[in-house]
Amino acid sequence: MKHCNNAQIAGETSARGGIDDYPSRRESVPQVIPRKDPVVYSNWRQDAPLSEEQTAFYDANGFLSFDIGFSKESRGQLIDEATRLAHEKDELDSNVVITEPDREEIRSIFRVHDLSPIFEKLLKGTRLVEIARFLLGDDVYIHQSRLNYKPGFHGKEFYWHSDFETWHVEDGMPRMRALSMSISLYTNNELNGPLMVIPKSHFEFIPCVGEAPEDHYKSSLKKQEYGVPDEASLTSLAARGGIVAPKGPAGSVTIFDCNIMHGSNSNITPYPRSNVFVVYNALSNHLVAPFGSRPPRPDFLAARGERVVAI
Amino acid sequence: MKHCNNAQIAGETSARGGIDDYPSRRESVPQVIPRKDPVVYSNWRQDAPLSEEQTAFYDANGFLSFDIGFSKESRGQLIDEATRLAHEKDELDSNVVITEPDREEIRSIFRVHDLSPIFEKLLKGTRLVEIARFLLGDDVYIHQSRLNYKPGFHGKEFYWHSDFETWHVEDGMPRMRALSMSISLYTNNELNGPLMVIPKSHFEFIPCVGEAPEDHYKSSLKKQEYGVPDEASLTSLAARGGIVAPKGPAGSVTIFDCNIMHGSNSNITPYPRSNVFVVYNALSNHLVAPFGSRPPRPDFLAARGERVVAI
Repeated sequence: MKHCNNAQIAGETSARGGIDDYPSRRESVPQVIPRKDPVVYSNWRQDAPLSEEQTAFYDANGFLSFDIGFSKESRGQLIDEATRLAHEKDELDSNVVITEPDREEIRSIFRVHDLSPIFEKLLKGTRLVEIARFLLGDDVYIHQSRLNYKPGFHGKEFYWHSDFETWHVEDGMPRMRALSMSISLYTNNELNGPLMVIPKSHFEFIPCVGEAPEDHYKSSLKKQEYGVPDEASLTSLAARGGIVAPKGPAGSVTIFDCNIMHGSNSNITPYPRSNVFVVYNALSNHLVAPFGSRPPRPDFLAARGERVVAI
Repeated sequence: MKHCNNAQIAGETSARGGIDDYPSRRESVPQVIPRKDPVVYSNWRQDAPLSEEQTAFYDANGFLSFDIGFSKESRGQLIDEATRLAHEKDELDSNVVITEPDREEIRSIFRVHDLSPIFEKLLKGTRLVEIARFLLGDDVYIHQSRLNYKPGFHGKEFYWHSDFETWHVEDGMPRMRALSMSISLYTNNELNGPLMVIPKSHFEFIPCVGEAPEDHYKSSLKKQEYGVPDEASLTSLAARGGIVAPKGPAGSVTIFDCNIMHGSNSNITPYPRSNVFVVYNALSNHLVAPFGSRPPRPDFLAARGERVVAI
């Protein structure tokens, strides 16, 4: 794990012109760039939607997990609604429905807050939105929402990544001023391939190695290491912060910073780990042109333009 | 999960002629065949190498996990020896060295008890062998041994299976009178893709669906379900017995019956889960011709003939 020199810390000129504080997918040698943005953008106050301890924990570790206390009825309603959407998938915009590679089975449905009044109520409701507004110190909008079905037996692994790395390079999110919430519809345990986070990893930006200049094509880096964080950096982050899999009953919410390193193992157990997933972004941090060299991804993955509406 | 009718319970005529109590890979419809063999073949006695409670637990659940209390030195010696064998892989019989699909990295080395005096001492030593002799009620020999390297970051998942199903069909092991021991060289935790077992599943033989007769080719079963236990049977077994991932410090040994349903998720953590793996078979249960229709597998996977030597 090599720390950047001052020139790199001061920012690099991006492919799109201008300075890029978080350059990625340009170098063939792993490096680490210290975070240049706050984690919690508000000062804690008595009427904050999180306790002082919760706020401090999130600030220090980059995530926070607690039970939002679903009633049995509201959980049942969410599961029924998820089932209904899955059954009606043929009537939905085919772009927002992602199926498993070799199966008809649904993996995710995007933009659920637009497709279902029940999920709209959950994701635009006061409770979650106030937490997002408080932590991000701004009005917020929904950058992305989705239902993850993750059925048992053949849940795929998801390798380590920082969401911000993708959102910055591919979607044009300028700063680290967004967060995700995952609300579980079933009990999470440690064996059904739960979300794993590396606490404290949100303080460092680990650029992905890849899209190396042509004259570096003989680099000794293995093919598998292109486009993902390098193993030495991950080892170092895990040695410092450990690896945690927040668990809890259905209705547990895990809030995590846009730059925390996270991933999940596969799931061969019969236990599904379906969840509702939402990303809130600060209004002031709305997307601009991508910091990478490709055109932006579709707006069901990353809201832009007229979809940027404060809740 | 459909239980077999009496005719099936009484055994089926195998492809090789004769009655087969545990037919598999012949039907396209999942079924369950009750175990027809004991689990513990000896009566417990004061001088047994396991306590009465341990013996009862193994009998009822099909596995048992405890710390055999490696000294720091002996653990270090085993890890050094595993590293040495990996470095000298080019000098070993290439059949016994299995590398990861797209990598030079070693996944397993077979027949370690023949390759290394240090592993021979561990696997033929009094401690483990006496437990095997006691549980199997017979002299024993090593049916298979291997070192599993399972490095971090890209440990592959291993789907649910009963070892006996394979050993019976592919290798010709007649009865359920064998057991495995996995001795961990590093700490097992719940996040690095540990061995998962379904307690009590050893009481039922779940034939794999597959190699269906040609006139069943239009069966509605999904392709992924051929050659593996069906999802309904797995769900039912897990609903009854739960799923357990035995964990513990380096030097923990997990003993499990040849017919227990087990598997493991992938491992993206940096933490390796290397272990030494050995299968003891009762001398009286030595291999015969496979119960399936194919020729037997090589003897580094399944000892036969002159390799069957009581320890």
